[in-house]
Amino acid sequence: MAARPARGHVVLLSGGMDSATVLATAVRAGGPVHALTLHYGQRHARELAAARALARHFRVREHQVLRLPIGPILRSALTDPSRPLPRGWTRRSKGSIPPTYVPARNTIFLSIALGYAESRGLDTIWIGANAIDYSGYPDCRPEYLRAFERLARLATKTGVEGSTRFRVRAPLLRLTKAEIVRLGEKLGVPWGLTWSCYEGADRPCGRCDSCRWRAKGFREAGRPDPALAGPRPRSRRR
Amino acid sequence: MAARPARGHVVLLSGGMDSATVLATAVRAGGPVHALTLHYGQRHARELAAARALARHFRVREHQVLRLPIGPILRSALTDPSRPLPRGWTRRSKGSIPPTYVPARNTIFLSIALGYAESRGLDTIWIGANAIDYSGYPDCRPEYLRAFERLARLATKTGVEGSTRFRVRAPLLRLTKAEIVRLGEKLGVPWGLTWSCYEGADRPCGRCDSCRWRAKGFREAGRPDPALAGPRPRSRRR
Repeated sequence: MAARPARGHVVLLSGGMDSATVLATAVRAGGPVHALTLHYGQRHARELAAARALARHFRVREHQVLRLPIGPILRSALTDPSRPLPRGWTRRSKGSIPPTYVPARNTIFLSIALGYAESRGLDTIWIGANAIDYSGYPDCRPEYLRAFERLARLATKTGVEGSTRFRVRAPLLRLTKAEIVRLGEKLGVPWGLTWSCYEGADRPCGRCDSCRWRAKGFREAGRPDPALAGPRPRSRRR
Repeated sequence: MAARPARGHVVLLSGGMDSATVLATAVRAGGPVHALTLHYGQRHARELAAARALARHFRVREHQVLRLPIGPILRSALTDPSRPLPRGWTRRSKGSIPPTYVPARNTIFLSIALGYAESRGLDTIWIGANAIDYSGYPDCRPEYLRAFERLARLATKTGVEGSTRFRVRAPLLRLTKAEIVRLGEKLGVPWGLTWSCYEGADRPCGRCDSCRWRAKGFREAGRPDPALAGPRPRSRRR
């Protein structure tokens, strides 16, 4: 993927199937891999356990889990318990931004990953951003990610000195959910360890936007989702 | 300063004399003012009380104080208790970056301020960055701040939609410390409420880099520093 080998990787790892696939891709690229899990009061705190399990599975050199108390200052359906989570829609009109948008979320995440990367002498930041199909977030677009790379070179000591050329890798950027499933299978992602549901219950709700996109991905890839194996609660509908 | 009136302001307020002067400038500009204090384990936690006092003094609409647990992942003399704080030097060679540099600090701060601004419908972010005299940080340079503005327009819902044009204001960017003292005096900054020392003791140490720059500023502006009024501990040297 890269013209020259990376000095080392920081992977933004939420615990979902996308970031798990990104982690597997970074591991495959070679070099030291660090994982960074940033938690900001979003409802699916259940993902944290998934992130820890994935970091162990892929034997990352270091896994940092930080709780950012930014929920109260950022308004979003994902962080505000009084706002309902989106349900029952799977495709929105072209160009519209979903209600789960969190203001400046990826900029905050990438900034912290940048500081972490520079502190550890790493040069490549990996993020599960996706511009196709189910995203629609402004901070998941290629032009945004390139702008962040340019900023990173101006923002840092080693960037300004020229000793590090920070790069942002978003290997899922142009993949559909089904293609992500196929890529993850190829790389040996343990889907059973991942967690995608916006709700924090024992089992995925199957109804939230994230569950629906996940189900669509596995269905279109013609694969069963191991996270859904075993008996389901009777009250649950698909 | 601005060609059209701002919709509202977010001021990054540390509690030091610089951010206090920036807050006074934002208040003078007109429109709602919010203050955001981000604390990341740096040694001068004493600044938090100063930030709260300044926010009250200037009657901001909202003051958010967030503790970011990023100290362990960012290496710097300011966040690592095992590294000595710089002392006894007041001017470094041109272009060199001081040991108090915190990787990606301003990018992390501006990103959170951006999310806060968008969440509250505000468009102007104020920061006490300074490119003259006592700074030398890569993320205090004009080209960095302009790059962040460009990123902000790509990163956000309202930026992409064109309803908000986010701006970063750094009114101290080209001022010497003495000029900051004079500007602050003109705007009625209550210096006695501010805190600049890197140490968290009851009184400023007078020896750290921040104390020395502050003293130099007041001296060259021909003003007394009200924070130094009253009897001094005998052991203290200037």
